Amino acid sequence: MTLLENILHDFPRIDAGARAAARARLEQLTMPHWALGRIMDLAEELAGMTGEMPPPVARKAIVTMAADHGVTARGVSGYPREVTVQMVHNIVAGGAGINALARLAGIRVVVADLGVAGDLSELVKEGKIIDKKIAPGTQDMTVGPAMSRAEAVQAVTAGIEIAQELGPQTHIFGTGEMGIGNTTPSSAIVALYARTPVAEVTGRGTGIDDQRLSHKIAMIEKAIGQNAPDLADPLDILAKVGGFEIAGIAGLILGAAAQRKPVLVDGFISTAGALIAAHIEPLAKEFMIASHRSQEPGHRIALECLGKRPLLDLDLRLGEGTGAALAMHFVEAAARILTEVATFGEAGVSQAEA
Amino acid sequence: MTLLENILHDFPRIDAGARAAARARLEQLTMPHWALGRIMDLAEELAGMTGEMPPPVARKAIVTMAADHGVTARGVSGYPREVTVQMVHNIVAGGAGINALARLAGIRVVVADLGVAGDLSELVKEGKIIDKKIAPGTQDMTVGPAMSRAEAVQAVTAGIEIAQELGPQTHIFGTGEMGIGNTTPSSAIVALYARTPVAEVTGRGTGIDDQRLSHKIAMIEKAIGQNAPDLADPLDILAKVGGFEIAGIAGLILGAAAQRKPVLVDGFISTAGALIAAHIEPLAKEFMIASHRSQEPGHRIALECLGKRPLLDLDLRLGEGTGAALAMHFVEAAARILTEVATFGEAGVSQAEA
Repeated sequence: MTLLENILHDFPRIDAGARAAARARLEQLTMPHWALGRIMDLAEELAGMTGEMPPPVARKAIVTMAADHGVTARGVSGYPREVTVQMVHNIVAGGAGINALARLAGIRVVVADLGVAGDLSELVKEGKIIDKKIAPGTQDMTVGPAMSRAEAVQAVTAGIEIAQELGPQTHIFGTGEMGIGNTTPSSAIVALYARTPVAEVTGRGTGIDDQRLSHKIAMIEKAIGQNAPDLADPLDILAKVGGFEIAGIAGLILGAAAQRKPVLVDGFISTAGALIAAHIEPLAKEFMIASHRSQEPGHRIALECLGKRPLLDLDLRLGEGTGAALAMHFVEAAARILTEVATFGEAGVSQAEA
Repeated sequence: MTLLENILHDFPRIDAGARAAARARLEQLTMPHWALGRIMDLAEELAGMTGEMPPPVARKAIVTMAADHGVTARGVSGYPREVTVQMVHNIVAGGAGINALARLAGIRVVVADLGVAGDLSELVKEGKIIDKKIAPGTQDMTVGPAMSRAEAVQAVTAGIEIAQELGPQTHIFGTGEMGIGNTTPSSAIVALYARTPVAEVTGRGTGIDDQRLSHKIAMIEKAIGQNAPDLADPLDILAKVGGFEIAGIAGLILGAAAQRKPVLVDGFISTAGALIAAHIEPLAKEFMIASHRSQEPGHRIALECLGKRPLLDLDLRLGEGTGAALAMHFVEAAARILTEVATFGEAGVSQAEA
């Protein structure tokens, strides 16, 4: 049995008992009923996911998956491809957006190379990144599959392995990514799953102009037409129009959920990975928390398709895991509400009239 | 010159130089242009408010203003009046929602008695709350003014004094309140300023049923009809249909803004106070940050009236300052982005093509 088959066998479900215990306590807290709204929903969900009451949240990790994309040869991004390597160095040095936000929230940032087109062996040797490189970037999906089916399985498996390796010292995971061009495969995946025209889910990514946006849409349409992915087969979609980091994110989510660990899903690219994970194993959805709705127009559609309401809506479009890092504060807030707020009985506060 | 007149004389304006310096740095950070959206807007605004680059945010305080309301005799709330006193004790003991969320974010919680109908002298003696009691609750506004004009000035002044007393050890303020019945005067204030029917801005507060909601609306309409507040005179509105803690919040905001300190405005009641402050001194608006949009239906209208887009939308309706406490994380995040993220030049990352 492969690792993927292994974790899909006997996948966990929400723990109804822990969830009910959380709800019972939340309903007795010294405040009007459910007056902290979605923070209380989240507290209840965390108990159900982890099966523990109170749910443990102290140890937090965001995994930023890096990879390159053959389709960048078609001019779909405003940034040169070498920025992926440069940004990996920037994140490792602690100078990127994700580092600032993760430090603030006490989150460990783990960078993994799933398929960067550049030499990162120095960082691997120094133990600063996890080496799961499948290949130096995907193939150009406008002329053929982005990767082979075996590579897709390998990248998903790499994500599962990372979740398992970090599992013992991690209570809550967050997803993140860095890969010039990666809104292009993400738009393809979301268009397929949402059954919407490519133009409706494709945005400006790092900030391209109208002309390049039209070209990007045409390239995604061409890739879908050329490869004709099988909608019923998530690994076929990944192989034909996906990316190594997107596959890695899907694997990370599956691997975390299999351990009953909640996962904060970051932005548009992460949500494309989450859609893949949800189609491989629908039960995995119960362990996902949508952190934010990004400025990328397809993200709203992707979240609806996933059936998740995001916690934040702050016009973010950075990726790296930054939205997950910001939303992590609410995960901790939810846990604190469960443990630090007195009940009516404990505090001697009168309740509402019946 | 009174304290209120004194601070209104030569009120500060946004510092355009610090704001421009923040913007210049944000535009050079290693990310697509303005890719952290509203976090970057906030960073720019904080620099403009404080006049410092980077803006200081380490010391944070939320002031929870407590008071009672004569109108509770009319059955507008589902909770008995004594809950105000009980919740003051709960907050002082650290067991309320605001305590859990403030501890998480490193925020000091300061409780002030602006007009609680109960004996809190023990807590005052122990130095656990600030004593600014104007009277033991307002009068019933359905039969006459809630307070005299002199009391309204006194309560606003108390808020200014608190801002001044805390100023030397506070970089960022947050508002908060505790007062059974206080959505009733807040709805009156918002209906007046938004020029909307009372029914459109009046909600269930702590959770009243349909019948009591109709009665609450009728009581607010009666109070407005009975007192005929002068829309051009914020102190007249406060006196006739306001509350001591609402006046205190208006004063706190004015007092903080006068010191160039940003203020996170909490929920519906705090926004009613913010509207009063904005009508006393429109420049004060520039120092306000709307923390969240609550479940109370009038809050959306109140925020539009104030011209502020909230950071969060989490179905909160607790008050106490809990929304401000949750949003404080984003204030700190904004400051971190300004100081901890490398620029393209510093990190040697390639920029987008022109």
